[in-house]
Amino acid sequence: MVKTIGTSDLNYDKLMETVKEIPILQSAVSIINWDMETKMPPKGITLRSKQLALLSGIGHKMITNSKIGNLLNKIETHPDFVTFDTIRRRNVYLIRKNYNEQTKLPENLVVETERQRAITIDVWKKAKTLNNFSLFKPELEKLVELKKRAAEILMDVKGVHKPYDALIDIFEPGVTSAILSNVFNNLKRGLIPILHKCLSSSKQPDVSILRCKIPIGIQRRISLLLAKFLEYDVTSEKAGGRIDETEHPFTTGYYDDVRITTHYYEDNFTSALFSTLHEVGHALYEQNLSPKWIYQPIGESCSLGFHEFQSRLVENIIGRSTEFWTYFYPTLREMTKDNFSHVKLNDFVHAVNMVQPSKIRVAADEVTYCLHIIIRFEIEQDLIAGRIEVEELPEIWNRKYEEYLGVKIENNSEGVMQDTHWASAIYGYFPTYALGNIYSGQILSILEKEVPLWRVQISEGNFQHIKQWLIKNVHQYGNLYDPQDLLKKITGEGINIHPYLNYLETKYSQLYDY
Amino acid sequence: MVKTIGTSDLNYDKLMETVKEIPILQSAVSIINWDMETKMPPKGITLRSKQLALLSGIGHKMITNSKIGNLLNKIETHPDFVTFDTIRRRNVYLIRKNYNEQTKLPENLVVETERQRAITIDVWKKAKTLNNFSLFKPELEKLVELKKRAAEILMDVKGVHKPYDALIDIFEPGVTSAILSNVFNNLKRGLIPILHKCLSSSKQPDVSILRCKIPIGIQRRISLLLAKFLEYDVTSEKAGGRIDETEHPFTTGYYDDVRITTHYYEDNFTSALFSTLHEVGHALYEQNLSPKWIYQPIGESCSLGFHEFQSRLVENIIGRSTEFWTYFYPTLREMTKDNFSHVKLNDFVHAVNMVQPSKIRVAADEVTYCLHIIIRFEIEQDLIAGRIEVEELPEIWNRKYEEYLGVKIENNSEGVMQDTHWASAIYGYFPTYALGNIYSGQILSILEKEVPLWRVQISEGNFQHIKQWLIKNVHQYGNLYDPQDLLKKITGEGINIHPYLNYLETKYSQLYDY
Repeated sequence: MVKTIGTSDLNYDKLMETVKEIPILQSAVSIINWDMETKMPPKGITLRSKQLALLSGIGHKMITNSKIGNLLNKIETHPDFVTFDTIRRRNVYLIRKNYNEQTKLPENLVVETERQRAITIDVWKKAKTLNNFSLFKPELEKLVELKKRAAEILMDVKGVHKPYDALIDIFEPGVTSAILSNVFNNLKRGLIPILHKCLSSSKQPDVSILRCKIPIGIQRRISLLLAKFLEYDVTSEKAGGRIDETEHPFTTGYYDDVRITTHYYEDNFTSALFSTLHEVGHALYEQNLSPKWIYQPIGESCSLGFHEFQSRLVENIIGRSTEFWTYFYPTLREMTKDNFSHVKLNDFVHAVNMVQPSKIRVAADEVTYCLHIIIRFEIEQDLIAGRIEVEELPEIWNRKYEEYLGVKIENNSEGVMQDTHWASAIYGYFPTYALGNIYSGQILSILEKEVPLWRVQISEGNFQHIKQWLIKNVHQYGNLYDPQDLLKKITGEGINIHPYLNYLETKYSQLYDY
Repeated sequence: MVKTIGTSDLNYDKLMETVKEIPILQSAVSIINWDMETKMPPKGITLRSKQLALLSGIGHKMITNSKIGNLLNKIETHPDFVTFDTIRRRNVYLIRKNYNEQTKLPENLVVETERQRAITIDVWKKAKTLNNFSLFKPELEKLVELKKRAAEILMDVKGVHKPYDALIDIFEPGVTSAILSNVFNNLKRGLIPILHKCLSSSKQPDVSILRCKIPIGIQRRISLLLAKFLEYDVTSEKAGGRIDETEHPFTTGYYDDVRITTHYYEDNFTSALFSTLHEVGHALYEQNLSPKWIYQPIGESCSLGFHEFQSRLVENIIGRSTEFWTYFYPTLREMTKDNFSHVKLNDFVHAVNMVQPSKIRVAADEVTYCLHIIIRFEIEQDLIAGRIEVEELPEIWNRKYEEYLGVKIENNSEGVMQDTHWASAIYGYFPTYALGNIYSGQILSILEKEVPLWRVQISEGNFQHIKQWLIKNVHQYGNLYDPQDLLKKITGEGINIHPYLNYLETKYSQLYDY
């Protein structure tokens, strides 16, 4: 049978050709942002904020181009639309969603937010260095006001009832603060007993073994080896990635140009090690999206929660496992000279998995990590709802750290100013870190059935089976499904905290012998 | 007297607000280009060419926005226009010129050229490494055809009679190939006798002293010291520049974010040294444009010839002078350990000024340098006129090198593929290098009258007087005048090769004792 090309096919092709420019522009903007974080001379910030504001205005115009709206209308109302396959329907759905949302946002709000974002990041860096929250406060206030305005505008079109839910939906479609409150309360109840069992165990790791000085040059070489093990190519002539240095590590990019950053501290080499593993987890997702869908909305990652599931899988489930270190410890020993020659493998593994309430989220262990997130979630929820003000943040932050983690915050650089997110205009993102952990537990329980030998394979230095499984079950689907649907497709169920709690229970009862 | 704000003032302000976006976008694009040359993972090239094509299309739309045309019409036809001061008139003139030219160029030609440019640069790099002109040829052919089309379209609106003249005018307004042919013929006639006197002198430098191995780390530190001497800040918290590494050094940026690249070869440390000085010369011009004119057309540099005058001034007139080395040689000696402890200052200075016909333009001495340019000028002229084809380039190139410089080119990597310009879609630019030398001679003769002690000051490590003179007489004028007018304003005359020839004669008769 010869398929004739109907009007709606032609309009669909026109639509796809029109929206193709959006990810191309966004990927260019991501380079400009990457440069701002890694390479830009300090004086360049004013010009940079203007560049980013201009580009975000251009992007906004591109996304809200009435041509897109007209084509969408024609396609959606055409009788042939019901015959569209899943892929086309999903592309149309995603374009419609984005179009409706972005057309609601006034261009000057978008531009102003972008301008303010660049300035706030810059001030945050200075304020953090100087441990001066008052310096940060006025710029953060402006940014929070802009985000609140955007959140209120988006509520209606996103069909949610709270401004904060509109922001969460940007990163994790279909998830609301009500769902999260419930999940997080149960999660907290599950984590606390594990935490207490670890803390009260008589078998405690000796973390002083990790305090040796490892030269930065060696740490860089270790990062490259980790990248190589995970097939994140940053050195060959076919490399599609690179590793740079920023205080707060991140991943950015699109398909063939996906970059990570990490940080190196001479007296804390495991920080770089696990940061690199974490970011490589993100990078692999972006690099292994289906190339046939490049420049299409379905050709993007599913959600930030799914992103975080993969970074946490690589960093923790794999990267802090006995099996990974069975493979990698001899290399580490060789590269770090005499520092670990007398340290037993099991002692090293226990040390890198030490459970201890602490101030810094990115350095937190697996058991306490989600408590850091829950604090941020609760604060964001109140901040966006207008129940608390920016100036109250340090006090509230410190109080919650004392209450949830028993940790006393002595300066704001290690407290409320530790993360880049709020300075970077990213609100509603933090919960996805905890969701990522929860997803990782759920998906691990399936992966273990389908790749039963994965731990043996990792101990032999073979990451191939996990990688292929991820490509087949996660990466290749791109953004074809909303996160809750993809989760269900893979695991057969919705958000469920128990597999993650079981994973922690099994791992830590062994480590701490309780 | 209270000045009332008339309609033409309001329209002028509107116009300036509209065109402000153009340099902001262009400066963002320059970051994307810089990244492509310095940091991009190799696999990123396809995406990058799409990003650049998209951005150039956006830039083209911005420049050709009918709003600009309408505002220009209103301003130019308004009775008040005659009362506009020089600054406003010049801004209006520059906007009009650019608008007329860009509206003549079809958007698809602009976009396609940008796309092809990114691809051709990438292929050129590979072809140069592999010494394979056939690899380069098909992409270069496409690019040349696109540039020829643009040149033909621009002829009319630029009021020139040859396509090549339209391209020259982009970089050096008011200069034509007829003017250049005449100037270059006379220049050649003046250079040849100096060249022969140097070559036949019995006093020849010993360049073997420069062949020592200087570790790249030391060379990087030397580059930083040179930058510091010239007050090109790349290290402080107020830095507005940075130094990276590319095979072919370049400068890019705008006001507070101006970046240079250089290259380091362990067994040829003077290459980095003079490349760094050259590019810093460019960077200082961009950084010291008048900040009050930022984002205005007059707030840009005057021309490429004026740019090159400053890079050559810093690299050669200052950087290869006995006085500069009187100051810097002790530092160099200290940093390079025993390599120069037994080499006398004068022998070192003579070595870095050795006159010898060679294959590579960027490594050429001051006497032969312009002959390299004249070869490129003649070839470009014929190529754009369609008198020669891309496939003939290697043969013609090699023939001219034999004829003009007595040098036998054995492979195309050292011949026709040595420069990035043609791959980068830059035609009509090469002549500005020779013009820069000529201008530098003319302007030096004025500077010597007004800052008579400059040589003594340089020997004491003091660059301030020259810098301030340049800011006052060149930088601060930005693009207020066409290059020939600025030249006349500074020197009282048009293009004149004799001061440059006199400078060379004086310098080299002393060095070579003829």
